Amino acid sequence: MAKKVVIIGSGFGGLFAAQALRREDVEITLISKTSHHLFQPLLYQVATGILSEGVIAPSTREVLRRQRNARVILGEVTELDLTSRKVTSQLRGATTVFDYDHLIVAAGAGQSYFGNDHFDAFAPGLKTVDDALELRGRIFGAFEMAEVISEPRERNRQLTFVVVGAGPTGVEVAGQIAELSRVTLRRDFRSVDPGDARVVLVEGSSQVLGAFGQRLGGKAKHELRKLGVEVLLSTKVVDVDVMGVELEDAGGNRWRIESACKIWAAGVQAAPLAKVLADQAGAETDRAGRIKVLPDLTIPGHPEVFVVGDMMALDQLPGVAQVAIQGGQHAAKQIATGEHTPFKYFDKGSMATIARFSAVASIGKVRLSGYPAWAAWLFIHLLYIIGFKSQITALLHWLIAFLTSGRSERTITRQQIAARLALRAVGENYPPPAPIRTQPKDK
Amino acid sequence: MAKKVVIIGSGFGGLFAAQALRREDVEITLISKTSHHLFQPLLYQVATGILSEGVIAPSTREVLRRQRNARVILGEVTELDLTSRKVTSQLRGATTVFDYDHLIVAAGAGQSYFGNDHFDAFAPGLKTVDDALELRGRIFGAFEMAEVISEPRERNRQLTFVVVGAGPTGVEVAGQIAELSRVTLRRDFRSVDPGDARVVLVEGSSQVLGAFGQRLGGKAKHELRKLGVEVLLSTKVVDVDVMGVELEDAGGNRWRIESACKIWAAGVQAAPLAKVLADQAGAETDRAGRIKVLPDLTIPGHPEVFVVGDMMALDQLPGVAQVAIQGGQHAAKQIATGEHTPFKYFDKGSMATIARFSAVASIGKVRLSGYPAWAAWLFIHLLYIIGFKSQITALLHWLIAFLTSGRSERTITRQQIAARLALRAVGENYPPPAPIRTQPKDK
Repeated sequence: MAKKVVIIGSGFGGLFAAQALRREDVEITLISKTSHHLFQPLLYQVATGILSEGVIAPSTREVLRRQRNARVILGEVTELDLTSRKVTSQLRGATTVFDYDHLIVAAGAGQSYFGNDHFDAFAPGLKTVDDALELRGRIFGAFEMAEVISEPRERNRQLTFVVVGAGPTGVEVAGQIAELSRVTLRRDFRSVDPGDARVVLVEGSSQVLGAFGQRLGGKAKHELRKLGVEVLLSTKVVDVDVMGVELEDAGGNRWRIESACKIWAAGVQAAPLAKVLADQAGAETDRAGRIKVLPDLTIPGHPEVFVVGDMMALDQLPGVAQVAIQGGQHAAKQIATGEHTPFKYFDKGSMATIARFSAVASIGKVRLSGYPAWAAWLFIHLLYIIGFKSQITALLHWLIAFLTSGRSERTITRQQIAARLALRAVGENYPPPAPIRTQPKDK
Repeated sequence: MAKKVVIIGSGFGGLFAAQALRREDVEITLISKTSHHLFQPLLYQVATGILSEGVIAPSTREVLRRQRNARVILGEVTELDLTSRKVTSQLRGATTVFDYDHLIVAAGAGQSYFGNDHFDAFAPGLKTVDDALELRGRIFGAFEMAEVISEPRERNRQLTFVVVGAGPTGVEVAGQIAELSRVTLRRDFRSVDPGDARVVLVEGSSQVLGAFGQRLGGKAKHELRKLGVEVLLSTKVVDVDVMGVELEDAGGNRWRIESACKIWAAGVQAAPLAKVLADQAGAETDRAGRIKVLPDLTIPGHPEVFVVGDMMALDQLPGVAQVAIQGGQHAAKQIATGEHTPFKYFDKGSMATIARFSAVASIGKVRLSGYPAWAAWLFIHLLYIIGFKSQITALLHWLIAFLTSGRSERTITRQQIAARLALRAVGENYPPPAPIRTQPKDK
């Protein structure tokens, strides 16, 4: 009988694991909280109006439709039993239990506020489609507010954008907001000049894009400053509230920046499932809550349980798509062959865009910046989303956005603006699910 | 000095009025609750995953960016004073008052539940981008739920879609859900066959597409039935709850249909501003709350105040885009020339799509159905959205959707699923706006 493989998560790790098993005699069940596979590296383009959510979040079900040995289950994993090898998934009151012979856990990571979870209401992260749509509403909404406010300080507050964290996401978001204000929106307003917008990128360490090395980090900083982004290095965020942020520099000096729109791109925290798993297996977790796995990506005492992607801690590997993809494929290969081998990560390089025609890339020993890096970035990202059926539209959206400086996806809706706080006020499980019960028979 | 023209609403009436005044020596202020112009006739395509919201909801500000005599204000009109000629707009605590010499009121209409406003939580309408995104989540979400439910009655409830009202929107939504279930999603599920989905179109009158005449209505009904839509004519909805709908036929027989996803496409109600305006001017309103205007589209005693589009009642004109467009242009022309002339509506015809390659159209004395009507529909809609910069992407999205039966915009987010109820629970004005006040000076 075909072995049962349960995969938790539809991100890079989970999806590529499922696809790597497509020719194997296994029964795959992929359980995910979202119905889409999220191409997270482009999420900032949704938040800044370039791409629609559908382009970077294709339905997982659609991606796997032709893979007959795989089924996709929308649901949240609420229980995990390593002894009886069972996973319980819930979707609005409907509970399903799945047995497994092999389990691949790839539930990813969320934003970390380093113990200050209340920051989240004021400075959303950029981890989910909801986050991106909400930020889109906040970014474009701030310009709208500025247009109707005559009081200069409040107007300036609306036109001040603070991005926390100068990793790839922070750099990309800051660069895009700067470009938006200097180029895209230049002629759209009458009372304010969007070009007056202040974009501040705050980073705790002494460098932009730390993972890219000093030279590329320096180039990125230079490019950002050319765009008009204020880059504050060695600066910590000590408080965030509705009116702005409080900062502290290395010398212990504190000051505030008043800002209506704050974006948090600093730090990640493994999904809560990591702790459940670690507790049961007696495995260790690191500071970001990631599970310390064995070299073959399994957890101690459970050669049938693999952890891949952002939930996994191994050899200081970074939380990037390639680690998740290769990890998922490595887990799949071991399931297919039955042989356990250590995971070897092949670093294909990393890149970050700063603005139109401007990026940095580190590929092997090659360091690129400016236009060549941007062209490489475009090429590689297009290659990756091929296979998800979105490439033509993505390319077209990009071309339009880049050639015209336009942004075709600027819709602000009420749900984007207010939903997060409203949902928090009413509780995470609101509304209560409809009762699942037999009804009086239709007449 | 240039005359001040205030336009309320960024729909067809308001936007086309603004554009018609582009060469005049006037100062235009267009105030709207949404930052986008909504191409409402295609909203059902957002709800069913074909188009992204950005394609049919371009930023009003972007559309009018080069029109230097126009400014766009995001805000809700909270006060209107016909005597002092002032309009007050609010945006999250920021209040602005605008004087006018001429006023064009084009705030449109919302869904009407005929006195049963509580239906709205269970059966959203299709009037706003939020509505469309929520329905998208509900429609695709129902299939996801069905996939994880083993209890047959509940599974069937999830796979039963009830569309109320067989006007163009109802017909288009019912047709698209049927096509989605029969074609697009056919291979996407493992436990359920989406083709088993039951799509019920409920209409109180004895005909589908009443405004199109008996012959085309009959064709549309036939096409819908061929697609597998159950068409219930002369049937009223007497109750809607979370589990389903209660129906009553012409003979007074009542029965229930258990359905998780209900869509309301019956009846409209003019925006509340209509009542404010009518009360002040002593004008009459009709049953749908629309203001009875004079033949030149002004209200009695106020030749400087025009009402156009879905807020206006005149000669039984239908609530369609063309009436709003031509009304807006007629108001603009009278403002430009200073001469008041009666509005003459030129009926360019009407059309409704049923599915891929299937539509009905009534243009002058010509009646088209099937493929020719669909081709005409496509051509005309493309022509109209030209000028909103979205035509290439819209065309491409359509082509992909039509050629592959795919749907590239299927993203379900938590905000789509739960935001409406959560926002209702916490109150319409949640969260309270941040105080607008001077802050301690930045250090």
